[in-house]
Amino acid sequence: MTIYTPLSLAQSLLRCPSVTPEEGGALAFIEGVLREAGFEVHRPVFSEPGTPDVENLYARSGSGRPYLLFAGHTDVVPPGDRARWRHDPFGGEIDGGELHGRGAVDMKGGIACMMAAALAFIRERPDFPGSIGFLITGDEEGPAVNGTVKLLDWAKARGERFDACILGEPTNPERLGDMIKIGRRGSLTGHVTVEGKQGHVAYPHLADNPIPHLLRLLGALVAKPLDSGTAHFDASNLEVTTVDVGNPASNVIPAAARATFNIRFNDLWTPESLEGEIARRLREAAGNAVRYTLTMEPTNAVAFLTEPNDFVRFVADAVEAETGIRPKLSTTGGTSDARFIVRHCPVVEFGLVGQTMHQVDERVAVADLDRLAAIYRKVLEAYFPA
Amino acid sequence: MTIYTPLSLAQSLLRCPSVTPEEGGALAFIEGVLREAGFEVHRPVFSEPGTPDVENLYARSGSGRPYLLFAGHTDVVPPGDRARWRHDPFGGEIDGGELHGRGAVDMKGGIACMMAAALAFIRERPDFPGSIGFLITGDEEGPAVNGTVKLLDWAKARGERFDACILGEPTNPERLGDMIKIGRRGSLTGHVTVEGKQGHVAYPHLADNPIPHLLRLLGALVAKPLDSGTAHFDASNLEVTTVDVGNPASNVIPAAARATFNIRFNDLWTPESLEGEIARRLREAAGNAVRYTLTMEPTNAVAFLTEPNDFVRFVADAVEAETGIRPKLSTTGGTSDARFIVRHCPVVEFGLVGQTMHQVDERVAVADLDRLAAIYRKVLEAYFPA
Ligand SMILES: [Zn+2]
Ligand SMILES: [Zn+2]
Repeated sequence: MTIYTPLSLAQSLLRCPSVTPEEGGALAFIEGVLREAGFEVHRPVFSEPGTPDVENLYARSGSGRPYLLFAGHTDVVPPGDRARWRHDPFGGEIDGGELHGRGAVDMKGGIACMMAAALAFIRERPDFPGSIGFLITGDEEGPAVNGTVKLLDWAKARGERFDACILGEPTNPERLGDMIKIGRRGSLTGHVTVEGKQGHVAYPHLADNPIPHLLRLLGALVAKPLDSGTAHFDASNLEVTTVDVGNPASNVIPAAARATFNIRFNDLWTPESLEGEIARRLREAAGNAVRYTLTMEPTNAVAFLTEPNDFVRFVADAVEAETGIRPKLSTTGGTSDARFIVRHCPVVEFGLVGQTMHQVDERVAVADLDRLAAIYRKVLEAYFPA
Repeated sequence: MTIYTPLSLAQSLLRCPSVTPEEGGALAFIEGVLREAGFEVHRPVFSEPGTPDVENLYARSGSGRPYLLFAGHTDVVPPGDRARWRHDPFGGEIDGGELHGRGAVDMKGGIACMMAAALAFIRERPDFPGSIGFLITGDEEGPAVNGTVKLLDWAKARGERFDACILGEPTNPERLGDMIKIGRRGSLTGHVTVEGKQGHVAYPHLADNPIPHLLRLLGALVAKPLDSGTAHFDASNLEVTTVDVGNPASNVIPAAARATFNIRFNDLWTPESLEGEIARRLREAAGNAVRYTLTMEPTNAVAFLTEPNDFVRFVADAVEAETGIRPKLSTTGGTSDARFIVRHCPVVEFGLVGQTMHQVDERVAVADLDRLAAIYRKVLEAYFPA
């Protein structure tokens, strides 16, 4: 059996140009390595009208319980202007102790560490009592329609039941060990349109300018905080992201004005309760005279929390043992596929340092790869005690 | 000498397709008629880089003082979709006692009445002691760069001095006789841009959303009236005419937000004093933390007033004598070329009923043409007493 280091696995993955929705050879590489180690591997392809077909991978070793799942994605965001990169973004080159390339931290590096840890663990404990799985999508950075959601449903339909999951997204703001994510805020986007009456600025009494009305409505949305946070969550936050009238004529009062807002919300809210609160604030500010419409975009990003339990403690202990840092249990940042996985089993997120993700010269310290693999290995040892 | 009725003159003018900047034969027709009546006629053409050349007309009868000037424009706004017109917009057709066509009230009809009145007066009183002039531009509805301003400067350079002017814009909201305009509010347009810091909505503390800042600044602009009006003027009024961010990404806090406002202001303000007031309101609302810029567009639309004097009274008396209505002395509505003329002599505006101006099926009652010509005739008789 070949011995794979986290570095060699990461290099192989970085050399696959798997910009969403291209598989780029990344899943095929993982399939080969896992099969060689005795995993049963599936490669379901999911389709949806209007979106490209996407390849995914599901692999399992062992048939017992508990079942620990490693989750992640091999697709990457485009490298942009390659001339701005110090090294070929798909070259997997090492320079000054760092491995360079698109996906180095988000998150082919994390997948390489998971694989190295799982393979080493299974090699040493071939008869461990539970199961170890990989749930890897090629559609996280894109529309995220033919990826993790469908892969989880597909696995569930096959009878797969998971007991815990580690998602290997880059969770550390600055140093490996800074932060485990045990939940994420939800995200909800809404649009407000005020209908006024067009007219000439010289005859304002014959018109009804929608802009002051919209200013008042938006003011009511941001005037009062939505909450002041909870035990594990920051306060919910509303940002007005755009206001657009598009009236080129400075002597014309426009007919309508539109705004969009996005709310990152904690576990005090559901999308439904939030919509109710927003509607109430607008209604109070509008009074009877203002004609407006509120439309909320459908969202699958609800707030979720994995209550700090034994599993969370295993991960935190492993991080501290390897890095000397007690990681913060956080729920900050954007959304991730963890919001889908949590419907199936408790999930924590821990991976590399996110600083260079989605940037030019994305890179990871080779030492971090070794340490993250060691952390994952320690989690396996704690989860499957001998 | 041909006898021209207001109707026949108006019909001839309406049949000239003089959409700005096309002369369309309208000025040539006026030149022919006035020359025949003994006027000295000039047809200066003005140019400016970036704008079309425009033809204009200046005519004078008599060489003495006082000098009464009739002012107006022969250019018209485009008719739009001709299929929506009941009659050819350039056909000069009469239907149900109304003359139809683009420019019927704004303001070929008014020019026809001025010409009919002046020709009849001069025919009857060839040795009247003063002078009667026509200052007609072809660039009022367009950029207004090669029109009245240059024509007045051109006349001044020739040594022409005017004592009073009637501008024949359609001043009556509903019935002939409703309203004389003795002044106009000024117009000033400004732009506010707030610079924030772009970022992800999930990390608002790393960004600085410019939208709430802009909302606050705009709120400060509209919170307090600029004034409560003066003897002859309504209160000054500020309208925010557009707000634009143009951020398509609802997960991104935008970098900047822009708004435009327009102020219609009375004789309490100059553009300079207004800009000072706007700058002060923004400064107070912004505090130290907000980076914003205020830019005002150059304006030549200052507020002006022709104090009600003998000349204004002659016009009001003539209106009342013909219509039975004592006209309101008003300063409402948009700007007009009167703001340029007032630099040279007192000006009042009186013309037809404006309801259909710039609309499909622009039209004027034939009876109104006769009455307006009679009003202008009475003004001449009062201004040049026998
Ligand atoms: Zn990622
Ligand atoms: Zn006009």
